[in-house]
Amino acid sequence: MPDPALLARLSAAVDANFDAEVAFLADLVRFPSTRGNEAPLQDWLARQFAARGYAVDRYTLAEVPLAAHPKASPMVDARADASVQVVATHRARDPAGRSLILQGHIDVVPEGPAAMWTHPPYAATIRDGWLYGRGAGDMKAGVAAMVFALDAIRAAGLEPAADLHLQTVTEEESTGNGALSTLLRGYRADAVLIPEPTGGAITRCHTGTLWFRLRVRGVPVHVAVAQTGTNAILSALRLIQALQRYTAALNRAAKAHPWYRDVPDPIKFNPGIIRGGDWASSTPAWCEVDCRIGLLPGTEVAEARRGVERCIAEAARDDAFLANNPPRIEWHGFLADGYVLEPGSEAERVLAAAHAPVFGAPMEERRSTAVNDTRFYGLYFGIPGLCYGPRGEGAHAFDERADLAHLRKTTLVLAAFIADWCGLRPARGAG
Amino acid sequence: MPDPALLARLSAAVDANFDAEVAFLADLVRFPSTRGNEAPLQDWLARQFAARGYAVDRYTLAEVPLAAHPKASPMVDARADASVQVVATHRARDPAGRSLILQGHIDVVPEGPAAMWTHPPYAATIRDGWLYGRGAGDMKAGVAAMVFALDAIRAAGLEPAADLHLQTVTEEESTGNGALSTLLRGYRADAVLIPEPTGGAITRCHTGTLWFRLRVRGVPVHVAVAQTGTNAILSALRLIQALQRYTAALNRAAKAHPWYRDVPDPIKFNPGIIRGGDWASSTPAWCEVDCRIGLLPGTEVAEARRGVERCIAEAARDDAFLANNPPRIEWHGFLADGYVLEPGSEAERVLAAAHAPVFGAPMEERRSTAVNDTRFYGLYFGIPGLCYGPRGEGAHAFDERADLAHLRKTTLVLAAFIADWCGLRPARGAG
Repeated sequence: MPDPALLARLSAAVDANFDAEVAFLADLVRFPSTRGNEAPLQDWLARQFAARGYAVDRYTLAEVPLAAHPKASPMVDARADASVQVVATHRARDPAGRSLILQGHIDVVPEGPAAMWTHPPYAATIRDGWLYGRGAGDMKAGVAAMVFALDAIRAAGLEPAADLHLQTVTEEESTGNGALSTLLRGYRADAVLIPEPTGGAITRCHTGTLWFRLRVRGVPVHVAVAQTGTNAILSALRLIQALQRYTAALNRAAKAHPWYRDVPDPIKFNPGIIRGGDWASSTPAWCEVDCRIGLLPGTEVAEARRGVERCIAEAARDDAFLANNPPRIEWHGFLADGYVLEPGSEAERVLAAAHAPVFGAPMEERRSTAVNDTRFYGLYFGIPGLCYGPRGEGAHAFDERADLAHLRKTTLVLAAFIADWCGLRPARGAG
Repeated sequence: MPDPALLARLSAAVDANFDAEVAFLADLVRFPSTRGNEAPLQDWLARQFAARGYAVDRYTLAEVPLAAHPKASPMVDARADASVQVVATHRARDPAGRSLILQGHIDVVPEGPAAMWTHPPYAATIRDGWLYGRGAGDMKAGVAAMVFALDAIRAAGLEPAADLHLQTVTEEESTGNGALSTLLRGYRADAVLIPEPTGGAITRCHTGTLWFRLRVRGVPVHVAVAQTGTNAILSALRLIQALQRYTAALNRAAKAHPWYRDVPDPIKFNPGIIRGGDWASSTPAWCEVDCRIGLLPGTEVAEARRGVERCIAEAARDDAFLANNPPRIEWHGFLADGYVLEPGSEAERVLAAAHAPVFGAPMEERRSTAVNDTRFYGLYFGIPGLCYGPRGEGAHAFDERADLAHLRKTTLVLAAFIADWCGLRPARGAG
């Protein structure tokens, strides 16, 4: 924990800069950075980082040998060469402290029917202490926090004594390939902190995620003789029901998991997109369902895939048509492991020490049923991954929003964490 | 039944012209006249009819007061002003016989994934006596038959002694508004014959059809907390299952129907198109299902609609979310009655007498579980509606095809029917 005088100095700097931080967050939210459309925001961020004096590395996923890494996920509906990543680096003179990566994703999920939003999804409306918009919580507020934590340190006339990489990535919502690419490009540190909207809790563990697309065929006929054809929509429903039963079985088994035994139904299955058929009076010839299912830490991705494949194969075997026309499974996104941040790391201890004085309470832990990008660091590169950030509500929902008062405190926690983890020195050129 | 000499004369004329008839059918099939795209084919047909000397009335549905008629169906996904109808009229000098309408629809249902066709859907490939293509059977072969039946009469130096309207209409596959429009525009006759692909059987009765679009909302949330949201796709599945149960109950009741007691499950329910959701890892906020359900002759459309509405309302009532967010039902197409061609009509007797010598067997009857356009004539305008035509296979399916040998015979039956129903005279200007 920073000494009270330093904490007060950082707090004053965060406060002095907070209007600018909120304006920055509003700017972020106004970019509709859904998948495939992140580049303009990344270009803007690269300029923001350059203006602050960081060394900026801007590249696309096409420039990184992702395919060679066993933990890269397939990108079926997105172009690698349009997926821009940004790494802004503070290189310390004579590095003394511990190096750090601060990373946030700036891709957002689709906003859905705009009419269902109270405030337009990309208007960044502020009301009663909340900033509304798609991505406001997940996780543009966290991005604002990490950028302005460093700004506060600079405003206080200081700078980190160790190397620090400030990274904005894409693909967090679909593959994780953005985060993985920074590692494949060579960026490393003694810890990573990803300020997802955790409400000030440390993420003890997160589940993995698989994405798959079911493709079902049917035999189209005039509905007058529907019994002579098959209906691909109804076949898809049968497979969805089989996956629901399979998920229920997985959740029964989860009651024995060391980290998830107390989380009700931690494995979530979701048919998220469906499309099928061409005509109301013809039995549909095709149906596609984009699905997501979780897996617990300790389950291999390959094992989880086999489980899904077995479930579909068994359901198809029980159906006269599907038995001879097996559904296809396309793995079209996430093939992500779960991850446990083992208790007792020095990084977590330092973060907890920064959290407590700012919030006046100990840092709590959460066990997440969604994936995040820390897994790449913790599982494959031996770098402890802290997933900790401000409070948001409505991730992936209508009226998603970020809590501005909480954001201010989180920004200070991050500044204090940097102070203790990296160490601080008088800034170059500072008075 | 025409005397054998006249039948032989007509038969020779049909045969002499049959290559041209097949070429005409192939031309028809090459037009991809799916809903909204019929106009080019109608323009071409109007020119064909004008070249044969008919008086041609070409108009769009926007020019007819459809909305004022209680049996018009809503056209949600099509433009009335793009829906071209063609009526070609033979006006008899001193009309002597019975007037006749010959009508065919030239709209076809979507071809679905082209890769699933053995022969391309609009290539009109001929193999082993069959002509393949979307609409070849349903019902462009019938259109060719009615046009070339009249051509044979002319080629034999004859013409109908009564007025005859040769009509090509649209919307048969979605509303029936094309056929209805010809009646609202004033065309009447003593009988109508619609050469749908019945395989040489007379259609004793047909079921009615309702189209409706279910619109279901969900509460989108991150799938990590799926239990706090609702999944519109899963809600739609629940409604589909309720409609399946409802249909099963209707089919149990159908066992007491005078015309359908011996037809297994005559009421067909079909979810034909589905679309919903935006993201695999968000519970979907919306799902839409385009459905079709049948109704038996004697059931009022209003009563059938109420039955569907009640089924959906009851299913929604049993669901915590749907009870407060009731699904919407949009009636977006067919609101069609079923129809029975009561046995004993003179028109049917004359048709059967024309059929028997050509096929060497009595005309059989069929009880159809799909709608056709004869209902408008029989139910609302007191005109007996004969639905009788050539053999086709694969209506609404892949590799739809028309049986060319059967088409030749059907063309002769139609010529013979015209001879007996309208009477024939030496043609004006004929030697």
